[in-house]
Amino acid sequence: MTARRTTEGPAARSGRPGRRPGGPDTRGEILGAARKSFADKGFTATSIRAVAREAGVDAALVHHYFDSKDELFIEAMALPADPRQIATIIIDGPRDEIGRRIATVFLRVWESPDGQQRMRAIVRSIAGSEEVARLMREGITQLLLQPVSDALDVPDAPLRVSLVAAQLMGLAMIRYLLELEPVASADLQTLVDRLAPVLQHHLTG
Amino acid sequence: MTARRTTEGPAARSGRPGRRPGGPDTRGEILGAARKSFADKGFTATSIRAVAREAGVDAALVHHYFDSKDELFIEAMALPADPRQIATIIIDGPRDEIGRRIATVFLRVWESPDGQQRMRAIVRSIAGSEEVARLMREGITQLLLQPVSDALDVPDAPLRVSLVAAQLMGLAMIRYLLELEPVASADLQTLVDRLAPVLQHHLTG
Repeated sequence: MTARRTTEGPAARSGRPGRRPGGPDTRGEILGAARKSFADKGFTATSIRAVAREAGVDAALVHHYFDSKDELFIEAMALPADPRQIATIIIDGPRDEIGRRIATVFLRVWESPDGQQRMRAIVRSIAGSEEVARLMREGITQLLLQPVSDALDVPDAPLRVSLVAAQLMGLAMIRYLLELEPVASADLQTLVDRLAPVLQHHLTG
Repeated sequence: MTARRTTEGPAARSGRPGRRPGGPDTRGEILGAARKSFADKGFTATSIRAVAREAGVDAALVHHYFDSKDELFIEAMALPADPRQIATIIIDGPRDEIGRRIATVFLRVWESPDGQQRMRAIVRSIAGSEEVARLMREGITQLLLQPVSDALDVPDAPLRVSLVAAQLMGLAMIRYLLELEPVASADLQTLVDRLAPVLQHHLTG
């Protein structure tokens, strides 16, 4: 859902000693350093400056490729969409249709050309690594669950939102990894129609 | 939920040429052969006889340790409970309390001493191996989802039951692997109270 900047950066502008200029895969190297920093220190304690240090480049070069730490996280985790945009779509609009908006936006993202493949990779890496699990938990909480939870404005909103996350995560697991029928081959509209009232109940019931 | 037979079997009773008698880890070797057979041929096409052949023992020896192919599957997959017993608990009882029964029985099994650890291992192996995913899909469908679906006696029962499976699988993933708060540390009664109406809606709404 976000445009990706794939152009190469301004080579060797900083000129400071010890900082490498932008090379042919500077962007990839910054992402690798970001993954390492996020995993070592967690989402909150990681800064653009720390990622730049880890990658051996100037912080300005990191900023050339990524607007913010949030964007760096989204790209480093290869999320199929920007969770901040998803949060906005969920929050904006009538409260009594929030379940339907959630079901629609997630299924559209996951069923996009590379969405299924990315979801499979994400579930696999959460299951395979405690570091990735921790990182994903922190990042998704900060960028998606927390904003939605704040907008709901009820005391038990975090619990409600995390049960919605459970239903969606389970759907992804069953449709894309376990391929359990009939969920695996159900059409999108059927799934949206089934999920909408249940997600609505979790949030406002 | 099933008593496990851990006693060693009758050594060398069959006496046929080419068949090994029961050794100190015959049970473990049969389980290994079962995993291989199930993975190679799938659940339906695997027989006790084929597992015995794979393990190089007599079929009677397999029967000594495992009453049936179902039991062999349950032990080979290290499920935290017997899905046939869970199906019975879900099916027996008032239809308008089926959501609560499902939430209660699954959470009790998963929160048993080795339940969480087994669930973590199961989700990890589903995510890590397409063979395990296929095997789990077939076995769980035959032993749990199909019987519950048949008992519901409505045309779209399989879809309803698989959406319940998605909610439960997602809960396990979020509570035990992703450890997303507040689901990760919520008490059992809170989770049962939240899940019951949603599972009920999936099945009878």
